Amino acid sequence: MARWRPGSTGRLQQAAIELFTENGYDATTVAEIAERAGVTERTFFRHYGDKREVLFAGQQEFQSGFVDAITDAPPGTPAMELSARALDAASRALQEARGREHARARYAIISAHAPLREREQLKLAVLAQAVTDALVIRGIPDLPAHLAGDVVVSVFSTAFARWIAPGETRDLLDLQHEALAELANLAGTITAA
Amino acid sequence: MARWRPGSTGRLQQAAIELFTENGYDATTVAEIAERAGVTERTFFRHYGDKREVLFAGQQEFQSGFVDAITDAPPGTPAMELSARALDAASRALQEARGREHARARYAIISAHAPLREREQLKLAVLAQAVTDALVIRGIPDLPAHLAGDVVVSVFSTAFARWIAPGETRDLLDLQHEALAELANLAGTITAA
Repeated sequence: MARWRPGSTGRLQQAAIELFTENGYDATTVAEIAERAGVTERTFFRHYGDKREVLFAGQQEFQSGFVDAITDAPPGTPAMELSARALDAASRALQEARGREHARARYAIISAHAPLREREQLKLAVLAQAVTDALVIRGIPDLPAHLAGDVVVSVFSTAFARWIAPGETRDLLDLQHEALAELANLAGTITAA
Repeated sequence: MARWRPGSTGRLQQAAIELFTENGYDATTVAEIAERAGVTERTFFRHYGDKREVLFAGQQEFQSGFVDAITDAPPGTPAMELSARALDAASRALQEARGREHARARYAIISAHAPLREREQLKLAVLAQAVTDALVIRGIPDLPAHLAGDVVVSVFSTAFARWIAPGETRDLLDLQHEALAELANLAGTITAA
């Protein structure tokens, strides 16, 4: 189960997910979230602009998990190895910080609302660009850096979707490794045009 | 240069791109677009909800270019071959219908406005899902179908960005083939975890 940061932001995020799940996203107010978290509305607005923001808190931290793994890898590490390290590091952090039940609950809320789904899609597009930029800084040429940035997001997304599927018990990292192997398999059948 | 459909939608699209380029997206009104296209505002609103819609007209047709190539391929065609056919067919149609100058002008407008960039990102996410769905219908299992859907969009996007770069003269299909070869190269370095 989720292990929450003890501070008010962690409590606000937990309270929001609980209330959105219990009463629906649209019906939940900021006042109710603040009350459940045991803080004032003023405290809520010190951290988040609106109730949607609570669902997307931690994006910077999540993205840094990918980028830092690329930045910190030994010199000369090839592009796919940098990508695989980024996937491992970010997913390990995600599993440790929040856990599968939190991810499931959050994703169920997002899936039910088109504007939240769109925001989530944009988050992934920004992540792909951030990974690409980190790879370029590491000296990977533009074309493979772009493709690898997209591969990282594709592998993460497909593995994440399976990870939170009902009844799934496998580790997110294992699912990512399986997706990477499947991609190698697929790409191995690309023929010269 | 662009070869336009002779009808009022083609003229409206051309007029919009011209005016957005000349005077800026924000400063251009629907009345001006209609006037330049030689139609009434009423005709504009028969086809488009607002000026943004004109920039995203043809999305369904563009997406069908990918999906139809998958649907129409011979039985037993493997996943990557289906994906490569989709890329070839859609890009051939894009080059023939509109051409590079239209794509450059349209992309310059979109790049300059965050909400338009977001809409373009979402269009690509929808396209990836449509390709995945078409592959699943063809009997490709879920995991490779999802990865291949993402690969198609990644290869299209990276090739498209290079195609419209200043001074670029190569064919969009050649650039896609180069990206596919680079992806095969990258994925060939994936090692078992």
